[in-house]
Amino acid sequence: MPDTIFSKIIAGDIPCHRVHEDEHTLAFLDIGPLSRGHTLLIPKEPAETLDQLSDDAAAAIGRVLPRITRAVLAATGATACNILQNNGPAAGQEVMHVHFHVIPSFDNHPEGTGLQKQWTPGTAPADAADLAADIARRVTD
Amino acid sequence: MPDTIFSKIIAGDIPCHRVHEDEHTLAFLDIGPLSRGHTLLIPKEPAETLDQLSDDAAAAIGRVLPRITRAVLAATGATACNILQNNGPAAGQEVMHVHFHVIPSFDNHPEGTGLQKQWTPGTAPADAADLAADIARRVTD
Repeated sequence: MPDTIFSKIIAGDIPCHRVHEDEHTLAFLDIGPLSRGHTLLIPKEPAETLDQLSDDAAAAIGRVLPRITRAVLAATGATACNILQNNGPAAGQEVMHVHFHVIPSFDNHPEGTGLQKQWTPGTAPADAADLAADIARRVTD
Repeated sequence: MPDTIFSKIIAGDIPCHRVHEDEHTLAFLDIGPLSRGHTLLIPKEPAETLDQLSDDAAAAIGRVLPRITRAVLAATGATACNILQNNGPAAGQEVMHVHFHVIPSFDNHPEGTGLQKQWTPGTAPADAADLAADIARRVTD
């Protein structure tokens, strides 16, 4: 996997405003924040997208995510936030190393109000039962 | 914590199109999908928002998330997807039980193209170092 800005941050070759580090994960402020306290949480394991991440690295990310979220909310005073993780350029991924955004929401804030999204839900497809069964077969245990 | 549609699904009182279940987690098709294969992954532990979720439940969610993502991508043929988890009504949370959306992206699809978001990044605040240190102090180990 080629070096990215995040692998260079992990290696210490590029500085960051670090908010957490442990054996498996690193968290730091996003340099292009959508709102105050916008933080990135990344695995140290090199993986471009979430589907390529090992079980153990993914569990380590999951375990620390509530702690990071609590700390970001407490430090910023936000009472709502979005966790977003983009896989693939078509989904908006810009750095090809897995990263979870923790994005506080504010009604009004000079540093940004957070993640803006549109939500236009469809209806369940006619073959939903078959689709679910197909996905289920592919979830390896 | 009051019952929600998700706690009723966990209890088996409301049906779902299940794609995965283990001791700690349940995954099923979203009934209002943004795209084909849009799946929800939830902890069985009752928690309204991610900041209230226990370390162990969060680790279990994290561990299975890549597996669910791989399965959804494989079953739908999508090559990109977003993971989204909303905390608080102000961030778009509609059901007050922690849930992670797995939303495949498509260039064009009759069942929807996926998550549409705006991304207008700001710049790092002047007090970024102090903010990071404040968040870091609040990340409990």
